[in-house]
Amino acid sequence: MGYFARLRERVDRIDSHVCIGLDSDPRRLPDAVADAELPQWQFNRRIIDATAEFAAAYKPNMAFYETPDGLAALTETVGYAHAQGVPVILDAKRGDIGNTARAYARLLDDADAITVNPYMGTDSVAPFLNRTDKGVYVLCRTSNSGAADLQDRTLRDGRPLYAAVAALADGWATADNVGLVVGATAPDELETIRGVAPDRPLLLPGVGAQGGDLAAVVGDGFRTGAELVNSSRSIIFADPTGGPEFAAAARAAARSLRDAIRRLQAES
Amino acid sequence: MGYFARLRERVDRIDSHVCIGLDSDPRRLPDAVADAELPQWQFNRRIIDATAEFAAAYKPNMAFYETPDGLAALTETVGYAHAQGVPVILDAKRGDIGNTARAYARLLDDADAITVNPYMGTDSVAPFLNRTDKGVYVLCRTSNSGAADLQDRTLRDGRPLYAAVAALADGWATADNVGLVVGATAPDELETIRGVAPDRPLLLPGVGAQGGDLAAVVGDGFRTGAELVNSSRSIIFADPTGGPEFAAAARAAARSLRDAIRRLQAES
Repeated sequence: MGYFARLRERVDRIDSHVCIGLDSDPRRLPDAVADAELPQWQFNRRIIDATAEFAAAYKPNMAFYETPDGLAALTETVGYAHAQGVPVILDAKRGDIGNTARAYARLLDDADAITVNPYMGTDSVAPFLNRTDKGVYVLCRTSNSGAADLQDRTLRDGRPLYAAVAALADGWATADNVGLVVGATAPDELETIRGVAPDRPLLLPGVGAQGGDLAAVVGDGFRTGAELVNSSRSIIFADPTGGPEFAAAARAAARSLRDAIRRLQAES
Repeated sequence: MGYFARLRERVDRIDSHVCIGLDSDPRRLPDAVADAELPQWQFNRRIIDATAEFAAAYKPNMAFYETPDGLAALTETVGYAHAQGVPVILDAKRGDIGNTARAYARLLDDADAITVNPYMGTDSVAPFLNRTDKGVYVLCRTSNSGAADLQDRTLRDGRPLYAAVAALADGWATADNVGLVVGATAPDELETIRGVAPDRPLLLPGVGAQGGDLAAVVGDGFRTGAELVNSSRSIIFADPTGGPEFAAAARAAARSLRDAIRRLQAES
């Protein structure tokens, strides 16, 4: 069974579209885990224990794990998420030439899906696509302010670049294995993308710390049953004091996001 | 002294524009290093010993070092290259939102420069640019076949996307700290880029295994005194048998590339 089929099962079983971004910055971890052998893993374990009930997926961002200890913590984290039945998306945003992309594709050995950057084109993502049981999320219209610098440029045919990326990525699917990353901060762009690639599952970051528009993305975006709304810092660092109750605060924040999405789905 | 000033000094001192890509795939290492504690580090040490005389810079591609042992080998490699007076470019092709980009920017602690992907725009590269003593190479027109998929798209103003990237990157420079990655496989595109960003040092991959046009890039591309022509597999795996003379073969290949560039410079 492919990634998106597994993800849909998970979404249906727990009735939640929440993706929790494990951006577990070693410099921001609570004191309660500071003395552990692998503090990031200890932190993630407690976050997963507290939030798995609401988590359709976990999404660790590779930026926070590119140290020897970080990679060890990441491996433990992926295994532990799987033990709770939760798929894992590696937020790696990779994209390199074929020979190198194949090396990066090994990052998928443990994980269920990966995010990729489309700028280098087809051969840079092919090694990820070749693993048809895995999911590939293509960066399309991101949630940051700089997204407009290139992604919003208008092409000669009148389309914005991100729409061309959506069409390109749509054609990349070798099975039900390609999704798109579209920032929840960009509801108008989301509508355009839905016109180009109506059947691609979306990963929607930018809710929470980045201030995305949840109502707009649930209305326009949810069409495939496999959409994910990602929140990272607003969940895992929900307790800004980093006190001993950090996991309980994360649990409350994850549940709150799940419920907010449910309410919007019921209304739409 | 900033990165490009240091690089120019190195280029001038050894009269070489050769950048050696340390794409030291653990699956391709010669038997002679297989029993070392960190085979990648042992391999790189011997490659550096054999080639430093011709190396204006080394460029390890992060794809081959994203394991605990790989990161340890990379750290040793960077320190050893520095001990020989050779700057190191991390070929990481990173680009992520501000919070995450700052985490990636720590990859620069040891290295002298990094490659970044422009697709996510200004805030995704700002944390790299803020370290003005370090170099930032922006992917502009890459050397792979898929480069045409997005980079060659024509914008409404008639320019190709890669030219817009060159202009954007040119404006990103906060000091003499921004260069461009332009494939040696794309001499026509290089000419366009030189019209947009005449003063940006170039990193020119794609010579060797990818079949780039050395004569064309030396003619059009060399203007700042800090250009680098990169070759990876054609140097480090110059001995395809992986025999005990692998380092001598790498040395011969590096010298040969240095000499070929010198000849073309003399002619142009």
